[in-house]
Amino acid sequence: MIKKKYLLEGKTKKIYSTDNPDEIIIHYKDSITSLNGLKKELLQDKGILNNEITTLIFKFLKDYGVKNHFIRKINNREQLCYKVDMIPLEFVVRNIVAGSMSRRLDINEGITIDNPIIEIFYKNDGLKDPWLNYHHAVFLNLISYEELNKVNRIVSNINNILKKYFLDKNIILVDFKIEFGKNKKNKILLSDEISPDTCRLWDKKTMKKLDKDRFRNEFNDKEEVIDTYMEILKRLNAG
Amino acid sequence: MIKKKYLLEGKTKKIYSTDNPDEIIIHYKDSITSLNGLKKELLQDKGILNNEITTLIFKFLKDYGVKNHFIRKINNREQLCYKVDMIPLEFVVRNIVAGSMSRRLDINEGITIDNPIIEIFYKNDGLKDPWLNYHHAVFLNLISYEELNKVNRIVSNINNILKKYFLDKNIILVDFKIEFGKNKKNKILLSDEISPDTCRLWDKKTMKKLDKDRFRNEFNDKEEVIDTYMEILKRLNAG
Repeated sequence: MIKKKYLLEGKTKKIYSTDNPDEIIIHYKDSITSLNGLKKELLQDKGILNNEITTLIFKFLKDYGVKNHFIRKINNREQLCYKVDMIPLEFVVRNIVAGSMSRRLDINEGITIDNPIIEIFYKNDGLKDPWLNYHHAVFLNLISYEELNKVNRIVSNINNILKKYFLDKNIILVDFKIEFGKNKKNKILLSDEISPDTCRLWDKKTMKKLDKDRFRNEFNDKEEVIDTYMEILKRLNAG
Repeated sequence: MIKKKYLLEGKTKKIYSTDNPDEIIIHYKDSITSLNGLKKELLQDKGILNNEITTLIFKFLKDYGVKNHFIRKINNREQLCYKVDMIPLEFVVRNIVAGSMSRRLDINEGITIDNPIIEIFYKNDGLKDPWLNYHHAVFLNLISYEELNKVNRIVSNINNILKKYFLDKNIILVDFKIEFGKNKKNKILLSDEISPDTCRLWDKKTMKKLDKDRFRNEFNDKEEVIDTYMEILKRLNAG
């Protein structure tokens, strides 16, 4: 058993240090939030599902050569990961118009984007995670132009891999959010999680939403949200 | 005398066609607006000043090899220009933090930006001129990736030329907005205007604002705003 020490807590995860200074434990909680944390609920077992879904996806990506922080799953709610310095940027990839982009530019949800759109957001609660362009990110010392070019190539590669991965399970990858960190050798690693909390996933046949939008948009039928996440896990395991 | 026919009217300019289908007349009005047109006033002779200031700057840029739509000044308020199809994007260049960037990212006005920041905005009143990144602009069919790369190089070049141009007159070019159009040969030409309406210009010694911010921020002493624009014209003519 790994000896762990509480480090910090986010909206949906807790982080622990371990005896090995290069490794941490990530614990998946059951909480789910939207509206920048304003709407907050507990969804029983969501942490268990997202820990397993992220595990499957990060393993799959590693098999495809995408370097990431995942080492192994420890138990239902915890995984062992390499310790990284997180780059405080969220990279959002859009293959189909939905959510904030639909509202902001008054374009119907569901329209295909031929050249995937990449957006970056500054993880900063005080500023409400503002949208940046590359120049702002460099000016704010969050990342260099060289690193941005590198990360962009990684992001495009991940998008291509995951689009096909999900499509094979009859799921359309509408959009998703990923984050990166740098390990002690300054290597950029995909970090954080990839789950229905961080992706928009639509059923290929019915176009039904199989993701956190069920929580964002619907009348809070918690059981239905969990059923949706279980459906995703079932399909990922079936392949 | 050129025969002209009314074509369209914007917030601060009117456009006329001429007998030559490749040439138009731009008429500079005295109106000044802020808050996306919500705050609107008449500033006597502002149109005369901005017509002359834009004339000086576009001529100077042409001398430096920056292709633009300006042909010649016709009279106090009018200039003859090549007709172009406007690209509906505003390119904003920031050399020093000010205005919306200061508010949005909570950074003090006046901080120098080592690598100038370029932002693009979609000229669309219904959407309130939203901020875009390159991917959105291409998705919306406003411009191609190739054209964006070309325009970016032009924008950086213009910034370098104008920073020095103004500094020689003891004016700091804090930020500015420019627009581009394509002529019948599909060549990209700098178009629209460059004036204290579209630039933030600070006095090098006193850091006093010599631009439209006098209108945006102050208690509407119209005479003082016009005095500021006259000061700019005086300095440009002195060099």
